Amino acid sequence: MGNKIRIGITGYGNLGRGVEASIKQNPDMELVAVFSRRDPASVTVADPNVKVLPIASAEDYKNDIDVMILCGGSATDLPEQGPSFAAHFNTIDSFDTHAKIPEYFASMDEVAKPSGKVSIISVGWDPGMFSINRLLGEAILPVGETYTFWGKGLSQGHSDAVRRIKGVKAAVQYTIPIEEAVNRVRSGENPELSTREKHLRECFVVAEDGADLSEIETTIKEMPHYFSDYNTIVNFINEEEFRVNHSKMMHGGFVIRSGETGEGNKEIMEFSLKLDSNPEYTASVLTAYARAAYKLSIEGQAGAKTVFDVPPAMLSPKSPEQLRKELL
Amino acid sequence: MGNKIRIGITGYGNLGRGVEASIKQNPDMELVAVFSRRDPASVTVADPNVKVLPIASAEDYKNDIDVMILCGGSATDLPEQGPSFAAHFNTIDSFDTHAKIPEYFASMDEVAKPSGKVSIISVGWDPGMFSINRLLGEAILPVGETYTFWGKGLSQGHSDAVRRIKGVKAAVQYTIPIEEAVNRVRSGENPELSTREKHLRECFVVAEDGADLSEIETTIKEMPHYFSDYNTIVNFINEEEFRVNHSKMMHGGFVIRSGETGEGNKEIMEFSLKLDSNPEYTASVLTAYARAAYKLSIEGQAGAKTVFDVPPAMLSPKSPEQLRKELL
Repeated sequence: MGNKIRIGITGYGNLGRGVEASIKQNPDMELVAVFSRRDPASVTVADPNVKVLPIASAEDYKNDIDVMILCGGSATDLPEQGPSFAAHFNTIDSFDTHAKIPEYFASMDEVAKPSGKVSIISVGWDPGMFSINRLLGEAILPVGETYTFWGKGLSQGHSDAVRRIKGVKAAVQYTIPIEEAVNRVRSGENPELSTREKHLRECFVVAEDGADLSEIETTIKEMPHYFSDYNTIVNFINEEEFRVNHSKMMHGGFVIRSGETGEGNKEIMEFSLKLDSNPEYTASVLTAYARAAYKLSIEGQAGAKTVFDVPPAMLSPKSPEQLRKELL
Repeated sequence: MGNKIRIGITGYGNLGRGVEASIKQNPDMELVAVFSRRDPASVTVADPNVKVLPIASAEDYKNDIDVMILCGGSATDLPEQGPSFAAHFNTIDSFDTHAKIPEYFASMDEVAKPSGKVSIISVGWDPGMFSINRLLGEAILPVGETYTFWGKGLSQGHSDAVRRIKGVKAAVQYTIPIEEAVNRVRSGENPELSTREKHLRECFVVAEDGADLSEIETTIKEMPHYFSDYNTIVNFINEEEFRVNHSKMMHGGFVIRSGETGEGNKEIMEFSLKLDSNPEYTASVLTAYARAAYKLSIEGQAGAKTVFDVPPAMLSPKSPEQLRKELL
């Protein structure tokens, strides 16, 4: 590969910072600019040579950027930014509102097809790597069950829900797979598991001075949708302990396919992740798929895609010959 | 999908039988015929309605079969059968002589391109699923190390080597990953591991009456290439115990990528298999890739491919819409 793949980043939170770090690990790529909604002067990127520009100016750079990695959130940023960027750029995003994926895919495809750009949506680990493994599991072992466990990991959505409770100063929530359930699945038993049997939720909460702790605890445990279907442990800690022990965004999980072949032979496939940094790992997946978007675009493809549509070879900087020789 | 995908099987050993069983689990496929080098009258297939035909007659069925699954061995069958079948059929095979893959790929591509057929080579779990995970690991986490462990599982090649020793009546050899090494890798330590530190070899041997057991044991342990680089345990057992406890073709293993992102965050990706039946699982992978070969061929593609070239969606009987909705 002669020239480097020129990357742009839109949105500079945890994920955007992770993408910047990931690009540094990939010698076939270079970061052209970071686009932000904030005043560029207020945004400090890790590499002082990287330009920070207002998001409204992005279109001016459409000939200087091969792939734009959209690092906004799924709730409000991506539904709006996605289609507007797909009109001018190959894009990668981590849209993760599972229920709205078909709708988001359609809105991206509608723009990317006529613009002749490739938009790979919902990239990361779930959706993303976990999705690929769910697909492989059921395609290879059609008689069987698929189980997804998440954790141990910090859930941003659940932590936010706890932080919104009156009297809570700071909080994190960890999702923890229940070991007994994981072991039953790994043994090939194919159990039916309720929500409560699969995951435990554990909260670490810093309360305001004078807050009613038992009321906070009850409010958490009875919160519909977020906590009421789970066994939840609530720990109250002080601010110092919170800062020291609960600032890492660790996460992970397992996808297990437990299938049967022939006359009752059990076959177990498992994919697992153990991540110190959820946003940095997610960013690393986005970066690898940016390479794929670039290659697909060079091939003349256009439209919305997902991880299901991308041949593994496209993610690698190695040539097909090298891959066959070194990795097959 | 209106019509079923019409499959042919060439070679009816453990792998061919596994493919027959796997096709029964996939309602979008049907088995048209089994082709054998043996006298067809001597080959009994599981489903009495399936035709068994001489391999020399296969070409007569080129319009009746969408994909031919080649179930011969890599040493002598596939190098000869592969190109001859690729001239008339889309093919899938499990060519697994790692060092000769580039050469075999070239010989298949040379025939399949002009014949307008798709030949996916080296399909199974290693090469196959493990290869995909080695590729994903290094593409997503370029700073890191990849480790492949095999077992616990029965190694056919090593069992054969033991059986060839004078005085040995029957034997199996299990490859066993050394737990301490696996745990060091899983911890993110990125150790340098010698051959001896990664795997242990354990043999169960039935000796001929009056054979010199200590000579057999020494011959095994000192056998170059197969055993001399490993710690090997040799157990002598009787025929009854052999029959009862050592007839299953279990296997499995792990591919672990241990990488680093940002400022020293550790990220561990792991794919593992635990298989009661190595040939039945391998056959199930071949069957899923037969579906992909069919779809690629319908798209107008031709030539040799590997698992690296196949988008995951092609393996599934589900539509792209269904996949996005149900599995992403």
